[in-house]
Amino acid sequence: MEGKKVLVVGAGPVGSLAALYAAGRGAEVEIYELRGDLRNDETTPLNFTKSINLALSERGINGLRSAGTPELLESILARTIPMHGRMIHTRTATGAISQQSQAYDVHGRFQRSVDRGELNKVLLDHLSSLPNVHFFFQHKMTGADFGKKKAWFEIMDKSSRTSEDRAREIEVSFDLCIGADGAHSATRHHMMKYARMDYQQEYIDCLWCEFTMPPSKSGDFAISPNHLHIWPAGSFMFIALPNLDKHFVCTLFGPVELFSRLETGSESELVSTFDKYFPGVTTYIPPADLLGQFKRNPHLPLVNIKCAPHHFGESVVILGDAANAMVPFYGQGMNAGLESVRVLFSKLDTMPDRATALAAYTAERAEDARVIADLALANYTEMRSSVTSPLYKWRKWIEEHLDKYVPSWGWATQYSRISFSNMRYSDVIQRSKSQKRILTSVLLAVALAGGTVPLAIVWWWLFGMRFQQRKIFNLTRSAR
Amino acid sequence: MEGKKVLVVGAGPVGSLAALYAAGRGAEVEIYELRGDLRNDETTPLNFTKSINLALSERGINGLRSAGTPELLESILARTIPMHGRMIHTRTATGAISQQSQAYDVHGRFQRSVDRGELNKVLLDHLSSLPNVHFFFQHKMTGADFGKKKAWFEIMDKSSRTSEDRAREIEVSFDLCIGADGAHSATRHHMMKYARMDYQQEYIDCLWCEFTMPPSKSGDFAISPNHLHIWPAGSFMFIALPNLDKHFVCTLFGPVELFSRLETGSESELVSTFDKYFPGVTTYIPPADLLGQFKRNPHLPLVNIKCAPHHFGESVVILGDAANAMVPFYGQGMNAGLESVRVLFSKLDTMPDRATALAAYTAERAEDARVIADLALANYTEMRSSVTSPLYKWRKWIEEHLDKYVPSWGWATQYSRISFSNMRYSDVIQRSKSQKRILTSVLLAVALAGGTVPLAIVWWWLFGMRFQQRKIFNLTRSAR
Repeated sequence: MEGKKVLVVGAGPVGSLAALYAAGRGAEVEIYELRGDLRNDETTPLNFTKSINLALSERGINGLRSAGTPELLESILARTIPMHGRMIHTRTATGAISQQSQAYDVHGRFQRSVDRGELNKVLLDHLSSLPNVHFFFQHKMTGADFGKKKAWFEIMDKSSRTSEDRAREIEVSFDLCIGADGAHSATRHHMMKYARMDYQQEYIDCLWCEFTMPPSKSGDFAISPNHLHIWPAGSFMFIALPNLDKHFVCTLFGPVELFSRLETGSESELVSTFDKYFPGVTTYIPPADLLGQFKRNPHLPLVNIKCAPHHFGESVVILGDAANAMVPFYGQGMNAGLESVRVLFSKLDTMPDRATALAAYTAERAEDARVIADLALANYTEMRSSVTSPLYKWRKWIEEHLDKYVPSWGWATQYSRISFSNMRYSDVIQRSKSQKRILTSVLLAVALAGGTVPLAIVWWWLFGMRFQQRKIFNLTRSAR
Repeated sequence: MEGKKVLVVGAGPVGSLAALYAAGRGAEVEIYELRGDLRNDETTPLNFTKSINLALSERGINGLRSAGTPELLESILARTIPMHGRMIHTRTATGAISQQSQAYDVHGRFQRSVDRGELNKVLLDHLSSLPNVHFFFQHKMTGADFGKKKAWFEIMDKSSRTSEDRAREIEVSFDLCIGADGAHSATRHHMMKYARMDYQQEYIDCLWCEFTMPPSKSGDFAISPNHLHIWPAGSFMFIALPNLDKHFVCTLFGPVELFSRLETGSESELVSTFDKYFPGVTTYIPPADLLGQFKRNPHLPLVNIKCAPHHFGESVVILGDAANAMVPFYGQGMNAGLESVRVLFSKLDTMPDRATALAAYTAERAEDARVIADLALANYTEMRSSVTSPLYKWRKWIEEHLDKYVPSWGWATQYSRISFSNMRYSDVIQRSKSQKRILTSVLLAVALAGGTVPLAIVWWWLFGMRFQQRKIFNLTRSAR
C-alpha cells in the first residue's frame, strides 16, 4: 500500500481505525467526514445526545491491538470502565427491590464501558500526529465513479444551500476508497450503482431514548460501576452503562406503542411506569429530571442493515455500520466494525492483488455480518425478558461449568465466544449448534435410560430456544 | 388538487400517467426527468437498446382508461399488437421443430405487445398539449426536504461535471411530490431520510440480452405475430414479442454462468447453443447477426425491489419501479405501475386529507406490490420449464374448463385474474388458495371413496406447487 492514495469516508471509530491501518502501511490517507471535527464541539452538529457509551470487548480490542500501536490501545483502555457482569434489577413478589449480579464469564473476562466520543477523540488525536494522514471535515460525498476511481465532495458550512456553496465542490482521485460512513452511508449509495448489491434494511418495532443518571450526592457512582445494569420489563427495558465522569449513560428501549403512550400521557404516567417496571431508577434520576430528559432527548429508531457484496472491483469497500448496521443488544456493533478493519487488512496483506483481497473479504465478512445482525436482534429478547428466567440461569450455569471444569472439551457459551474470542461469528454459530446436538443426545440418552423423558423435553426446548433463528425481515407489515 | 403544485419525478409511462391524473384534477404539474426528451432521439442517452416491448394488459389499460381521456387510450391501443397466447417452441424426440400454441384465456382475452418508447411518446405528446403541465428534461434530483416540501435539481448537459455546471442547480417548492423515477429512484433515496422505510433489493441470478428478429424476406413477421413466443430451456429461455414494424423484440434470459460461458466461448458455441435449445431461431436471425447483437447489446441484470411505506407524510409518494421493481416474467411491471397511479388517485379523491390518503395507499399497495413481485419471480420457473410439462397443461385445462363451463362458480386461473382483471393482487392469491383448498378436498374425497389415493397425491403436489411461496430474499450468498 506504500504510496497509494487511500480515501477513508467517515471519521468515526471504524473509519479512524481503517485510516490508522492504511497509514501504517505507508499509504497517503485522506479522511473525509460529513460533520465537523468532534474535538471542536462548536462545529459538531451531532444528531445524538452528548454521550453514547458502548461495550468494548475482545473483537474491538483486537482490532485496535492489531494496528500495532500499543500506546494508543493503552490510552483507550485507560478510558474504559470494566463491567464484569449484568446487574439485573427487578421487584420481588413482595414489592422489594432486588439486584442480582450475573457474571459475564466464568474465566473472569469482562466488557468495558467506553464513551464513543472519547474513543473517537483518542483515535483522531493519534491520526493527527501522522504525516501521511490528512483530514477534511465538513465534506459531504456527493458522487463517486468507482470505475475511474474519483469521488466528489461538497464543502459544507453553516450558510446552507445557496448556489455559491454548492459550487464549492472538489474532485478527489484515489487508489482505494474505504467507506465507513455509517448506516446512511453515501459510499454505499454510490457503490450500489456499480456493484450488483443485495441490500436489506428494516426498522424494528423499537425506539430508544437516552438518559443520564447523575453521580450520588457524595460524588460517586449512583449504582455499581462495574456492571451493565438492566431493568428488564418483558417487552421493553432500561439499561445503564458507567461513564468515567461517574455518570451512567442510560437508555430506554421499547416498542413504538409504549413511546406513543408515554409521549402523549400525563407526566405522572412516565414516572409511575418507571417506578413499576424499573425499580429504583427514580431514586437515582429524580422524576423532574427524568421527565425533562424524556422530553428533551430524541426518540430514535433502530435499523438493521445487511448487504452483499461489501466491495466493488478493486476500488471500494464498505465497513462498519455502512455495511452492517445492527441493533445494539449484543454490544457488538462497534466491535464488529473494528474487527472488520482487522479482517480487511489481513486480506490486503496476504492476497496477491487488491481485487482478490476485497472479494475474499466480502466472502468472509458478509456471512459473519449476517450472523451477528441476527444474533443482536435475538439478544433483545434475552436482555429484556429471558435474563430473569430460572431456565435461562440454569442453562447458563451448566454451560459455564462445563467450560470451567472440563476445559479440554473446549466448551463455551455462545455469549463468551461472541464477546471474548475472535472466532468468526459464523463459526460461533456452528460450534453452538454442535454443542446443542451433543448435549441433546446425551440428555436424551440419559432420559431414555432413566425414563426421565420430561427432563429431556425441557432440555430440548431450552436449547432449541437458544438457537432459534428469528425471521427478522418481514415486509408483510405494510403501513405504519 | 385544484391549483396545487404537483412535482412528478420521472417522465416514463408511470410518471407521465401520474402527471395526466394530476393535471386532470387541476393541479399545476411539473415533470422533472433525468434524461432528455425521448421524442428527440439525439438527446436521449438511454441505457437500453433501441426498443423494449412490453405486455400491456387489463391493469395497465384500466390505469390509462381511468384517466378519462378516451382518445388517448385509443391512440395507445392502436399501437399494440394482440397476443392471444404463448407459442411454445421445442424440439421433439426425433429432433423435429414443434410449435404449440397455448391460449392465454378461455374467454379470449389477450395480452397486447407494445413498444415502451411508443407508449411513452404518446403520453408525452398528450401532456405537452396541456396548459398546466411543464416539462424539465435533463434535470437530475440532487436533494429533497420532504418536511419543507422543497427539492433540488441539477441541470445536466453534455459538458460534464465542472464546477460551473454543478452550480446550475434549481430549487423547487411543491405541495406533493410523486416519485416515478425507476428502480434507482432518487426520490426514494431522499425519502428514506424521512420515512423509516423497510427496503429490500436483490439481484437474481439471471442476466438478459435483447435481440431483434427482422421481418421475413416478403416483409412480413417472421413468425406468428399474435403470440408471445417462448423457447423454454429449463434453466434459461428465449422469448419474442411482436413489434408494429414487423420485427420481433427478443430476449435471452439465463443465469450468469451461461452468459459467462457464451461471452468467453467460441462464436460457434453461441450458435450451437441457440440451435440446440432455441430451435428455429437462427433461421429467423442469421448466425452472424445473432453474434453481432450478442456482442453489441448490453448484458443486464434483473433486480427485485420491495419497500414500505411508499409515502412520507403528505408530501411524497413513490410509484412504479421506484417502489416496486420486479422481474419481467409475469409481464406485470408496467401494468402494476399504471395501476398504482389509479389506486393512488382513487385514495386522493375519496379520503378527507392527503396524509390519510397516502397512508391508505401504502397500506393497500405495499402488500399488493410484495405479492406481485413474488409471483413474477415464481413465473420465471413456469415460463422456462413448466410450460412444457404435461401436468402443467392438465391443470391449466381443468381450471380453465371450470371457469368456462361453470361460470357461476366464479372459478378462474391465477394467470387470468392477474392479467385480465383488476382484482387486488393480494386478493388473487387468497382466491387461488381458496380454490386450491376446495379442489384438494374434492379430490381427496374422491380419492378416498374410490381408493385412488395416488391420484389425490398427484393433485395435491400439483396444486401445492402452484402456490409455493418462494423464499426470494436470501443473503447467505456472500460473494460474487
